[in-house]
Formats: sequence, structure tokens, C-alpha cells
Amino acid sequence: MTIRRPLILITNDDGVSAKGIRILIEMTRSIGDVVVMAPSMNSSGKAHSFTGGRPLRVETVSKEAGCEIYTCDGTPVDCVKLAAEYFCPRKPDILLSGINHGSNSSINILYSGTMGAAMEAAVGGMPAVGFSLLDFRADADFEPVMPYVKFIILDVLEKGLPDDLSLNVNFPVPSDGKIKGVSVCRQSRAQWVDCYEKRIDPHGRPYYWLKGDFVCDDRGPGTDQWALEHDCVSIVPISPDFTDKEALGILSNRYNSTV
Amino acid sequence: MTIRRPLILITNDDGVSAKGIRILIEMTRSIGDVVVMAPSMNSSGKAHSFTGGRPLRVETVSKEAGCEIYTCDGTPVDCVKLAAEYFCPRKPDILLSGINHGSNSSINILYSGTMGAAMEAAVGGMPAVGFSLLDFRADADFEPVMPYVKFIILDVLEKGLPDDLSLNVNFPVPSDGKIKGVSVCRQSRAQWVDCYEKRIDPHGRPYYWLKGDFVCDDRGPGTDQWALEHDCVSIVPISPDFTDKEALGILSNRYNSTV
Repeated sequence: MTIRRPLILITNDDGVSAKGIRILIEMTRSIGDVVVMAPSMNSSGKAHSFTGGRPLRVETVSKEAGCEIYTCDGTPVDCVKLAAEYFCPRKPDILLSGINHGSNSSINILYSGTMGAAMEAAVGGMPAVGFSLLDFRADADFEPVMPYVKFIILDVLEKGLPDDLSLNVNFPVPSDGKIKGVSVCRQSRAQWVDCYEKRIDPHGRPYYWLKGDFVCDDRGPGTDQWALEHDCVSIVPISPDFTDKEALGILSNRYNSTV
Repeated sequence: MTIRRPLILITNDDGVSAKGIRILIEMTRSIGDVVVMAPSMNSSGKAHSFTGGRPLRVETVSKEAGCEIYTCDGTPVDCVKLAAEYFCPRKPDILLSGINHGSNSSINILYSGTMGAAMEAAVGGMPAVGFSLLDFRADADFEPVMPYVKFIILDVLEKGLPDDLSLNVNFPVPSDGKIKGVSVCRQSRAQWVDCYEKRIDPHGRPYYWLKGDFVCDDRGPGTDQWALEHDCVSIVPISPDFTDKEALGILSNRYNSTV
């Protein structure tokens, strides 16, 4: 009997050279055949955007048996779409995105290219997981979290995920180096309070640099912020259905009509 | 007694020159003071992406009493962030996005710059509505839907919306020209099935153009696709909380642990 190795598609939003995707590729090669399609440039903050107005270019980084690495000049969502259709020998058994340098917990998911890619794959029928470490430094230490990454990948490969669902997995950086547990939880309410810094260029014209503060008052048990602040891995199940079901009733009374 | 006119912030993703935003601006000037910050270029498919790696530039299109129009070289989400902080005399009473040329119903919301802007405003504490007409042509006829647009704006200005909530409003184009009603409904399940067209450039190198088909099998009563196919306006209440609450229990059993 031939047991087919799983096909693992990998992308990220930090770009193909980031340490986080490199360690993910190395680890997953022991699990299955790997196809990587990552943005050629840093694509943080690209959310679920895709490229429709111009075509995409692809470069081959390396091609070994069981591990092909490509880059494209698009977004993380472009990477998933293009790789799944054109660069994978069959439909991938799983899509992995990351490991991101920096948090994608709470409201950060709205802006996240890492999770944009995961959600795109899930809508396309692939089990999908986005991984992020709460350390944005280029030389962040991913080793302590790799056993958790491997456990989740093997579990999802074995059991799958409900239709359309992706996982938003964030890893804390405990001060004592010890992760205290794993918590399936909901996304905290929060917002980025923006503050643009206005500067004047050498020609006297203004430009505006985005700065911001993460403001979150929703840090109770059951939230991803609570888990991470208590040194636990947070796993938030993510749906691409944005309908606010609680609001359906209220608004039906306000607006439903026939003419 | 002085009654303060409402402050209306307007953006879109088709760019400042689009007919859909022009008619929205003209209509809203009778309701309140208007500040427009729209992308200088077409920003369709930009979703919730924002610009962090470079600063933004702003151009003033026109400045009249009660109506200021600006463009910026960023995304719809950038427009909301920058306008709310730097170009509005106070916090806007409402954010309007659109009117988009083309549908943002169903899964299209994931990719939509129109709705990215609306969701951003809602998270920032502004009642927010995205409007879209199911006609992507540059000369689309918006006149038949303007009474509905005005009714919804006045209603939201009067009654507000629940915290964090935005409205995804899509207008059909009935073959007999008659809209049959208004339906508050949920987002249909669907996906875009992609098909990249590979071409070869004059230098012999490949490039890949995105094409795709909208595939939706979720068109029953209660969905936005059902409403639109029955010539009704669809209103989907949108939450920025992507947590799949039904999956929390299942996944808690699989992953929750303490060490």
C-alpha cells in the first residue's frame, strides 16, 4: 500500500526571506510535500486584498524533491489563489500561513495578510491555519513554539476543520520562557487609535505617517488577549461569514419591507 | 437654539472620480456637512488593507462651505483613518462608503474596499454604511436607488447602530426597473473559483492574469443573494468579530489544555 504524503501549501505576509516562514518550511518537510508561494516583499497590513488590475509575476527560489519555493509580486491572498491553481500538483491538504513576526490577535485580524491568506484558503475548501508569534523582531526565537505548531498541523491534517473555518493561532512570549497552556477563545474587542504624524518634505509639501496605539478593554477570560497575557497559546476559530446574527432581528424591524 | 448639521464622512474604493461617489456627495449635501476623502486611484479589491510602510499624500479637490473633497494615495481604510483624524473638524456622525459600481454581496465582502472602509469606521466608533449597486459600468444609473440611500442614511443618523456594527447594503437592478422591497439578511456562502490565464510577454517570460467565476449554492430565503435575485435591497449587518462561535465548543475539546 502506498501512503500518499500530505501536500502542504505555505505562505506568509512577511515575505519569503523571513525567519518565521523559513522555520515553518524546515519543520513541515518532515510531515509532507511542501509548496511555498510567498510574497516577494513584506506584505504586512494587506488584509484580504488581491491583485486584479495587473498580472502577477512568479520567481522560482528553489526546487527540490518534495519542497518547491516560489515568490510572487502580489498579496498573501494572491499567493494562495495562484499557488493552489497553478503551482500545486493537486489540491493542498492544508494551508499554513506564517509564522508571522508579531501579533494577529484581537482586531489585528482585520488588517492581517497572514490571516487573509488563511481565510482565502478556507473559503476555497482547504483546512487553514495562520500562526503568529508576539515578537515582531526579525530574529525572533520561534524554537519554543515549534512543538505546538507541529501538534496543531498534525491534528488538522488528521481530523480536518469544519467547512470554511480557519484557525488564528497566536503564541505568547512568556517572561520565564514557559507556555502555560492552550486556549480556544474568541477574538477580543479592540481598536487601533490612529495618530498621523504630519511632516513637511524638502519641497514644502506635507505627508502623513501612520502611527497608532492598540487599545483593548476586553481582556477577560475567554478572550484571546486573556489567553496571551496568561502565557497561553490562543486559538480563535475564524469564519468568513461577517453577518452579525444578533443584529438581524433588531434591524429587520427597522428596515424589512415590501412594496 | 442652534441645531448642528450632521458631519458626514464619505469614501469609496472606485476613486474620487466615480459616478457613484459623485451622486452620493450631491445627495448628502442637503443632509449635512460633508467631508470626502477618497482614493486617488481605483482601489477595488483592497479589502481592509492599510498603508504603514510609506507616508500618505493628500490632494485637495475642492473646498466649499459645507463640502470639502480630498483624495489620498492610499486605500479606503487609509482614507477613513486619515480623514477622521486630520481632515474632519470633529468626529463624523456617520461614514458612508460608495456607492460602489458592482456587487459587494455574499463573499465579495472579504475583498471589498468599500466595506473595508465601513468596517474600519465602525470599529472606530462611527455608524457606517457601505452602498453597492449591482452594475459595475462606469455610467451605471444610480437614480432609482437614491430614495433608499437617503432613507437609510437619515434612519442611521437618527437612531444610530449597535457598537462596532456596519451595514452592507446592496441594490439590485430589476429588469422592470422596480425594486420590490428591503430585506435584512445574512451573507450567502459562496466562493470565487479562480482561473489564472498564463501569458508570455515579448521577452519570453510568463505572467498570470486573474480571472474567476462566482459560485454560490446558498441562495435560499434569508440570504443576500435571495433578496437581490428577487429584486429586493439587501442589508447585511456586519461585525468585525470573526470568531466562529459555533466552533468554539468543538475546538475547545480538541485543543484546550494547561501544562
